[in-house]
Amino acid sequence: MAMSPVHSASRDSPPAIVLVEPQLGGNIGAAARAMANFGLHDLRIVAPRDGWPNPEAWARASGAHGILETAGLFGTVAEAVADRQVVFATTARVRELPRPERTPRQAVGALRADPLARSAILFGAERAGLCNADLATAEAVIRVPTDPDFASINLAQAVLLLAYEWWLAGLGTESPGLGFESELASRKDVAALAGHLERELDSVGYFHPPERRPSSVAQLHNVLFRQRLTEGEVRMLRGVIRALRRERRS
Amino acid sequence: MAMSPVHSASRDSPPAIVLVEPQLGGNIGAAARAMANFGLHDLRIVAPRDGWPNPEAWARASGAHGILETAGLFGTVAEAVADRQVVFATTARVRELPRPERTPRQAVGALRADPLARSAILFGAERAGLCNADLATAEAVIRVPTDPDFASINLAQAVLLLAYEWWLAGLGTESPGLGFESELASRKDVAALAGHLERELDSVGYFHPPERRPSSVAQLHNVLFRQRLTEGEVRMLRGVIRALRRERRS
Repeated sequence: MAMSPVHSASRDSPPAIVLVEPQLGGNIGAAARAMANFGLHDLRIVAPRDGWPNPEAWARASGAHGILETAGLFGTVAEAVADRQVVFATTARVRELPRPERTPRQAVGALRADPLARSAILFGAERAGLCNADLATAEAVIRVPTDPDFASINLAQAVLLLAYEWWLAGLGTESPGLGFESELASRKDVAALAGHLERELDSVGYFHPPERRPSSVAQLHNVLFRQRLTEGEVRMLRGVIRALRRERRS
Repeated sequence: MAMSPVHSASRDSPPAIVLVEPQLGGNIGAAARAMANFGLHDLRIVAPRDGWPNPEAWARASGAHGILETAGLFGTVAEAVADRQVVFATTARVRELPRPERTPRQAVGALRADPLARSAILFGAERAGLCNADLATAEAVIRVPTDPDFASINLAQAVLLLAYEWWLAGLGTESPGLGFESELASRKDVAALAGHLERELDSVGYFHPPERRPSSVAQLHNVLFRQRLTEGEVRMLRGVIRALRRERRS
């Protein structure tokens, strides 16, 4: 017979930490160490500037080597979060797309409230942060409240703050969950829905002039990814798109 | 006449951060950066291993040079905290002396509760931490709750967590909020969007058989009304519906 887990942290599905185009191996290692401090183990790296594996990461991980050795390497954010159901994105910039903004504490509260959902938190590159296209694929944006006179946080320290808040939230009281976890769509399914819509819109010349395409796509993604769609809703919306492309019955 | 400070963070007397026998200049610089992020500016350094000033500190401070330039250099902990009224000491070790133990959140709560007291937080060396003699001079001990399997926290990251908690405690109950309420679409606009979509779907025979129409409409409404759409997003989605009804360009 299985033993009961010691506390609620063990029963929850911890978020994956996704580093998008990180520049410095040392920051990747320091992020892994911070994850280990607070019970996170699923590290995913998208297009690291200096390649992977990077010895500087091992040098700064202070023994958290298991996390580096099992880290996933991906070419795009979409691939890195394909199996996830809930995605948050960190940013230090003023919002450009209409998207809910959370503090780290609020964000981990939302993750803990839905403990079985497969989740991820995105962190952008050291200088540039996440681009709008990546922000648009997240359900909500996380901003660390800082002194406005000095708002730039180191990448590994941003990971640390989220991991720390996630761990602390798990030490508190358990929550009952939102109740529809089993049928939430994966990000891959939502991305396929978005791709379907974009192909149809391309076929009728919706994206015009062409230079406006990226911002139009980001706005569409923003609406599709901001809420949590179920698998059934994704199927329904694909049916709606197919239906709208039909000829009118007369 | 002076203007009132914007929020309580400005009215409190911030704690001094005291690094006791720090080994790596890089950690001192990273600690200074973390302090700047969260409104702390009084850095005190006791007997740094590699002397002071240390160029590695400047290299890692990411612009928080003012804190390094005004940092105090001391020979002993007693001298470094001589002007302080309240002293907390961080530790990762199991307590050996009978001494109250606090989490970072509890500790900053205590500091904020006594806002005019001149306070300090002590941080030990990278490997050894604080010795018992230094711990004994503190009013209480602060321990960061971590995964017991990986409890070693980097010096600068420990400073970051305390500074972050101190800053948050000063913000009170504010949250950044959703930020885009002013441009949210009215329910009337969302209903008009839903009506537009239903008419187009009716025209292509989507709702079939007819007795399933009410439940299909309810599912569509669920997706459209569940999230907060902005006025701009409603206009965009109506444009998408019109575009999808166009003939294919060939």
